[in-house]
Amino acid sequence: MRKRIVIGQAGGPTPVINATLAALADGLISNHDVSYVLNGYEGLAKGAIITGGEAIHTKIADHRSIPGACLGSGRYPSTEQSLSDALRNLRSWQMDTLIMIGGDGTMSALSRLERMANKEGYPLQVIGVPKTVDNDLGGTDHAPGFGSAANYVAQSVLDSSRDLMSMNNFEQVRILETMGRNSGWLAAASGLFCQHEEEGPHVIAIPEIPFDKVAFLKKVDYALTKYGHALAVVSEGVRLPETGSQSNSVNGREVLGGISESLKQEVHDTFGVNVRAEILGMNQRSLSLAVSSRDAEEAGWAGTHATKLVEEGISGVMVSFERDQSPVYRVKMKEVTLEKVLTIGERKLSKEFIDHPERYYEWLRPLVGEVMPVYPAPVRKEDNYVSPKA
Amino acid sequence: MRKRIVIGQAGGPTPVINATLAALADGLISNHDVSYVLNGYEGLAKGAIITGGEAIHTKIADHRSIPGACLGSGRYPSTEQSLSDALRNLRSWQMDTLIMIGGDGTMSALSRLERMANKEGYPLQVIGVPKTVDNDLGGTDHAPGFGSAANYVAQSVLDSSRDLMSMNNFEQVRILETMGRNSGWLAAASGLFCQHEEEGPHVIAIPEIPFDKVAFLKKVDYALTKYGHALAVVSEGVRLPETGSQSNSVNGREVLGGISESLKQEVHDTFGVNVRAEILGMNQRSLSLAVSSRDAEEAGWAGTHATKLVEEGISGVMVSFERDQSPVYRVKMKEVTLEKVLTIGERKLSKEFIDHPERYYEWLRPLVGEVMPVYPAPVRKEDNYVSPKA
Repeated sequence: MRKRIVIGQAGGPTPVINATLAALADGLISNHDVSYVLNGYEGLAKGAIITGGEAIHTKIADHRSIPGACLGSGRYPSTEQSLSDALRNLRSWQMDTLIMIGGDGTMSALSRLERMANKEGYPLQVIGVPKTVDNDLGGTDHAPGFGSAANYVAQSVLDSSRDLMSMNNFEQVRILETMGRNSGWLAAASGLFCQHEEEGPHVIAIPEIPFDKVAFLKKVDYALTKYGHALAVVSEGVRLPETGSQSNSVNGREVLGGISESLKQEVHDTFGVNVRAEILGMNQRSLSLAVSSRDAEEAGWAGTHATKLVEEGISGVMVSFERDQSPVYRVKMKEVTLEKVLTIGERKLSKEFIDHPERYYEWLRPLVGEVMPVYPAPVRKEDNYVSPKA
Repeated sequence: MRKRIVIGQAGGPTPVINATLAALADGLISNHDVSYVLNGYEGLAKGAIITGGEAIHTKIADHRSIPGACLGSGRYPSTEQSLSDALRNLRSWQMDTLIMIGGDGTMSALSRLERMANKEGYPLQVIGVPKTVDNDLGGTDHAPGFGSAANYVAQSVLDSSRDLMSMNNFEQVRILETMGRNSGWLAAASGLFCQHEEEGPHVIAIPEIPFDKVAFLKKVDYALTKYGHALAVVSEGVRLPETGSQSNSVNGREVLGGISESLKQEVHDTFGVNVRAEILGMNQRSLSLAVSSRDAEEAGWAGTHATKLVEEGISGVMVSFERDQSPVYRVKMKEVTLEKVLTIGERKLSKEFIDHPERYYEWLRPLVGEVMPVYPAPVRKEDNYVSPKA
């Protein structure tokens, strides 16, 4: 059956979100009437779509490996009013199917839209395709976007550690702040490539563990004393007991960030050393240099699997990755009900991975593309040190 | 003549500074007694060196493509006392030759050391090898380290622009702050890869041009109105007329940074939009993912040329790149007196390049490796826009 389908992107972009979109277009344009909605749920509510036609499909295919959500994404509040406007527009466009690429907010809005449509007797098929750099989406082993972001974080932290190490007569402590919202997946990924104890990260703070200032400073102190420098990684979602999280509200949405700056002051006051706080920033979700080839490939698979769901008439689901238990990395493409995704809620780093970083790294390695930079042991004073004769 | 040679690294690292060091070791270890000084001028003053031997040479060769200065670098004040201590150590070690890889501070200290040695009748050969991500070193067409940093900045800004573009219903202005000290080379490199007007940077502020708030805000306004978002790039060395530069003093050295945060407030107050300020950070001088292959290669050439100067007994010079006037990019390795380097002082972006960005880009393109990411034109509303029927 030829369907009228509209596809959109929502939430913070990833460097591979357009790979998912391109795969959807590839799979659907020959048998269906495909349109694209601009700026995610805002475009649905306000009625801004681009209808099919060779030119737009080609343009979307050209964006396959370009970061950012090429249709426009954004954060638009999913109020009853905006969803009801969206539904009215979908009906007026006579859409059979709505496919949204997004994270947990997107899945929640999709689920509500489906329920509202059902109530009106409008047989709207809704399909969610996952994307998130934070990896906090339930119902899937992982989501496209995370592997590239983790690769960026791991490589940045390794390279930054070599930089810090060589400057430790000038700067002794560096605190790097990662994305991740209320989950520690990205911050915990920071140690993936480090192989020598000087490199660090010498301490990682994640939202899953209540922040313990004394323990944090103790680890900094240990590294400072032993190596002359300490590299700390802290997730944006970490809350300081006294002040709560570091966040601002923008358009009613909590935007995290700034914990590293508070800790900088703390470390400086405690040890009297030179401390730099740095936010790893938007490059985590956009730098094309850090794209994991596997992540990009899987982002395409997610789109392709969604096209199968369209044909099968399945609705109210999110595409999901199920990892085989085999020693070789292998995933099966599945789907999971939106209800289940929402019931699971924000997915945290598991206790097993927190307690056993090596198990987490083993789980993570295939997602960043299995490229493991091999850095030699640092040059050390002990490498034949000559004390002054003078 | 078999010489006793000591090699060091000083100042902020680059991702290719170890390529220079490895090339020096490659060229010198068979015919000379080579030692390495730890932590730059601090190691010279305090007498911390690693003497030759197969193991350390191998370790240094292994660091060829690793970011950070593997011998330790740092910022150590070049006081009369510390230089005199350094000279005493060099004499006690019976060194014939001192080779330092560094920037303008390094060259200045080298020159003073040579003068002091001459005065004592100590025939010390001194050779400087350039490195800087800021490209503010005179007497050379460019310096190793800059090409990779420029590549990082250009790619980050392009990718960040695609991210911003897709989120402009949430975040309207992004201000990215680059390194560069008192020169605008890096900030001006930010537009190198951008090909579509929506991408920006829509305004670039560099230290060479007195900051004009009205003009800056006007350009932001223009982009905001036309595209719905504005991307600004500002060099850390830009001074606000009212407050002067944003800097802190660390160990007596001015550390720049923070101008983007001041401008964020200004833009927010003027337009009432959501603004993000972001410092591109240490990745500019360390991220291995952004290394330009030409930059890495040339960093090796600089080291190799220094080995020739050792053999020729030339002293008081810095290795220099001279660019051919041919249409094809080609450089000659030369040397320039330290005196000349110091007379030129901090090199600024030329008026020609400021007035004609396309000439600057043409000059810059070979240094970042001639890889030009080709991004398709953004998806636009005009690509067949359907207004709501509802």
